[in-house]
Amino acid sequence: MVINVDLGARSYCIVVECGALDTVGARLSALGVGSRAALVSDATILRLYGKTVTRSLEGAGLLVAPVEVPEGEAAKTLAVAERCWEALLAAGLDRTSTVLALGGGAVGDVAGFAAATYMRGVSCVQLPTTVLAQVDASIGGKTAIDHPKAKNLIGAFHQPRLVICDPATTLTLSRREFRSGLAEIVKHGIVLDAAYFAEVERDAPALSARELPALERIIGGSCRLKAAVVERDEREAELRHVLNYGHTIGHALEAVTGYARFAHGEAVSLGIVAEARLALRLGLASEQTVRRQEGLLAAVGLPVRAAGIDGEAVLAAIARDKKARDGRVPFVLAPEIGAFRLVYDVPRSEVLAALGELRP
Amino acid sequence: MVINVDLGARSYCIVVECGALDTVGARLSALGVGSRAALVSDATILRLYGKTVTRSLEGAGLLVAPVEVPEGEAAKTLAVAERCWEALLAAGLDRTSTVLALGGGAVGDVAGFAAATYMRGVSCVQLPTTVLAQVDASIGGKTAIDHPKAKNLIGAFHQPRLVICDPATTLTLSRREFRSGLAEIVKHGIVLDAAYFAEVERDAPALSARELPALERIIGGSCRLKAAVVERDEREAELRHVLNYGHTIGHALEAVTGYARFAHGEAVSLGIVAEARLALRLGLASEQTVRRQEGLLAAVGLPVRAAGIDGEAVLAAIARDKKARDGRVPFVLAPEIGAFRLVYDVPRSEVLAALGELRP
Repeated sequence: MVINVDLGARSYCIVVECGALDTVGARLSALGVGSRAALVSDATILRLYGKTVTRSLEGAGLLVAPVEVPEGEAAKTLAVAERCWEALLAAGLDRTSTVLALGGGAVGDVAGFAAATYMRGVSCVQLPTTVLAQVDASIGGKTAIDHPKAKNLIGAFHQPRLVICDPATTLTLSRREFRSGLAEIVKHGIVLDAAYFAEVERDAPALSARELPALERIIGGSCRLKAAVVERDEREAELRHVLNYGHTIGHALEAVTGYARFAHGEAVSLGIVAEARLALRLGLASEQTVRRQEGLLAAVGLPVRAAGIDGEAVLAAIARDKKARDGRVPFVLAPEIGAFRLVYDVPRSEVLAALGELRP
Repeated sequence: MVINVDLGARSYCIVVECGALDTVGARLSALGVGSRAALVSDATILRLYGKTVTRSLEGAGLLVAPVEVPEGEAAKTLAVAERCWEALLAAGLDRTSTVLALGGGAVGDVAGFAAATYMRGVSCVQLPTTVLAQVDASIGGKTAIDHPKAKNLIGAFHQPRLVICDPATTLTLSRREFRSGLAEIVKHGIVLDAAYFAEVERDAPALSARELPALERIIGGSCRLKAAVVERDEREAELRHVLNYGHTIGHALEAVTGYARFAHGEAVSLGIVAEARLALRLGLASEQTVRRQEGLLAAVGLPVRAAGIDGEAVLAAIARDKKARDGRVPFVLAPEIGAFRLVYDVPRSEVLAALGELRP
């Protein structure tokens, strides 16, 4: 499946296909980029897929310099970005060159940031290998590194030139990491497309069993939904907020637990449950709408309850949210499956009560 | 004079007016930005103009946090950018907030880079106080910091929301700093507009005497020319190369003399002389065209000859130019006043010979 993201001069396509990593070189050289490239990845991913990608790039006549970064969130530091800049310079990359990000969301974030800021921006190709990165992080041009005091504080919008998702790469993920990515898939269905949500409900067993045809279909569908949002609101003016469904509370849950207790998708799953219940409490959604969301999250193995959540701490973390505008944080709420609404000035007491409903 | 830079959603205006710093607050709040702002500047400039700007901003209901950075190029380091991010966070700036850059090109570059990367980009207002920054650096969205191995290596394109030039601020510049900025003015005339070039020739004495009406007229005219180029080529695809006239050799002269011997405009002046002679050598321009360029540069007090230039070293520095594309560096040459032409594959021997003509 090939999805076009129409952003004028910054348009690009997303390829979702088993085996697509073999086609990186041909697809990239068709874009008329310069001959030099850097392949940013971590040790594990380089061992698994580095050869395939490098062979494909070299086969298309590109010179590839590998740049190894730490695994996971540890890659998203200024020190690692600096090492990337240094490596790009040492490899002789110029403005026509390309930075390829092979790996999960963290690799995509730091490599994307390095590409966004090296010589005021060079081409970036995202080669996401996790479900989360394939359906979410690799699309839309958000790049970032963390600041000691706030995640993703430093970054840039820098659209990739090309995104290539090989769903087969998700077969090597741990069960927990795999499931974590499914939260974004469920989210896309809830706020954007009722038919897609129903498709995910139907495919939940095949998805959980990681059957490739189902993976390719569902991941492709999710990419298409995200791409449509990005097309209509490239820089998160308003519409793109919709993608923060489950994330206002989800991010806060991650922050108050030191990014250690929950995987991102687990926090988003709990965030979806709490925000669904918030919509119910505010009289915006029905019980049935809430039940379907929780049902699907549970069906794909994601948590829908969590003990020991400090509601006041979560509220304080929400107030520090990067999406706050002059102190106000909007909630994205789902009045029904396939619809959303931005709600400002939600009473603290209702948020606290919704968080209380997460107790097992 | 108000010049509109039409870049679709990223459009902005440039105000060129004596006393315009008093209007910053009113003009900024008319753009509907959030209430928080940071004023980035160096100690000298803050002492001279900090109060005026702060009073104007506070008068419009904005909360202003001053952020002091080192003077000159020393501001353009990653460490200073980090301190800026830290200060923006400490001052509670969110995505609706504004970073104002008050000062010369270096302040504009680092503050612009901090604004481009804080929370993936917040509004930036350029308040340039040098001739160089007013007619060149503040317009077009180029932001950058230096890398130990290459100037401006790390940066982003991030258009300002507003540019306010007060020509009266150039009265406090040293003679050398003032003249340095005039090189960009002469450059704009040479490659973009013969009538403007003639106007600068006519106004050269008034300009050198820093008479305010002449300053306002000439600076405004230069801003208009640069804005027109930026409108047609926001990201330096092709046309914007024209602004590098005199800079291919000028940058290399700065690099081989350790950024210590020449002020930027002095190096550009010598670069213009050498590139004018290169065009003559290649049979592209007449002697008369070369003579007018040298004549105007000399008339405003800029150097047109320099001893002890190592031609081979300059050639090597040109090859490392950030504008090299897969190893080729284009020269912008002026076949006549008011016109330009991109020339690839200029023979080394001709560049060496043109550099030789700089000898006194």
